[in-house]
Amino acid sequence: MVSEMIKVNEYFDGKVKSLAANNAQGKATAGVIAPGSYEFGTDTIEIMNIVWGELKAQLPGQAWKTYQRGESFRVEKGERFKVEATDFMAYVCEYL
Amino acid sequence: MVSEMIKVNEYFDGKVKSLAANNAQGKATAGVIAPGSYEFGTDTIEIMNIVWGELKAQLPGQAWKTYQRGESFRVEKGERFKVEATDFMAYVCEYL
Repeated sequence: MVSEMIKVNEYFDGKVKSLAANNAQGKATAGVIAPGSYEFGTDTIEIMNIVWGELKAQLPGQAWKTYQRGESFRVEKGERFKVEATDFMAYVCEYL
Repeated sequence: MVSEMIKVNEYFDGKVKSLAANNAQGKATAGVIAPGSYEFGTDTIEIMNIVWGELKAQLPGQAWKTYQRGESFRVEKGERFKVEATDFMAYVCEYL
């Protein structure tokens, strides 16, 4: 069923929700993050694109940096990274 | 509860799913569209931003046009518009 091909995921007690799908370019999730601090881990290389609002992120071995709408960051496979949202924001994460 | 502040919506038998939230800039939804043809109606002015994949759209009184990732289109309040997705895609819709 096509409708099952958009998978709804919820994390951190519903404070992060995402919609996952695949297209010709690969797998991606479109998600929304509520205000708060979170830590994520990667199973593949991830490209996080900020598509609404902004997000502070501390990538492995780097200082905290605020990413604005239109900006993106890359996290290598098998890494953990921290993020902090001061307001609701949306992202598109691409899995390479 | 903050987690309820990210509302999951489903349309067209789950072939369009979206996550709705508000932030300082206003209300927006991050959504994913499965392949297919759909018609939407607006209750406010909407800015549709293509954030992953692409989307064909026929805006009121205009020819069909394909909008690529990074492009956006505006639909006035109280209008109907048609879209067609040939592959899964994601958008951020801002409500003005």
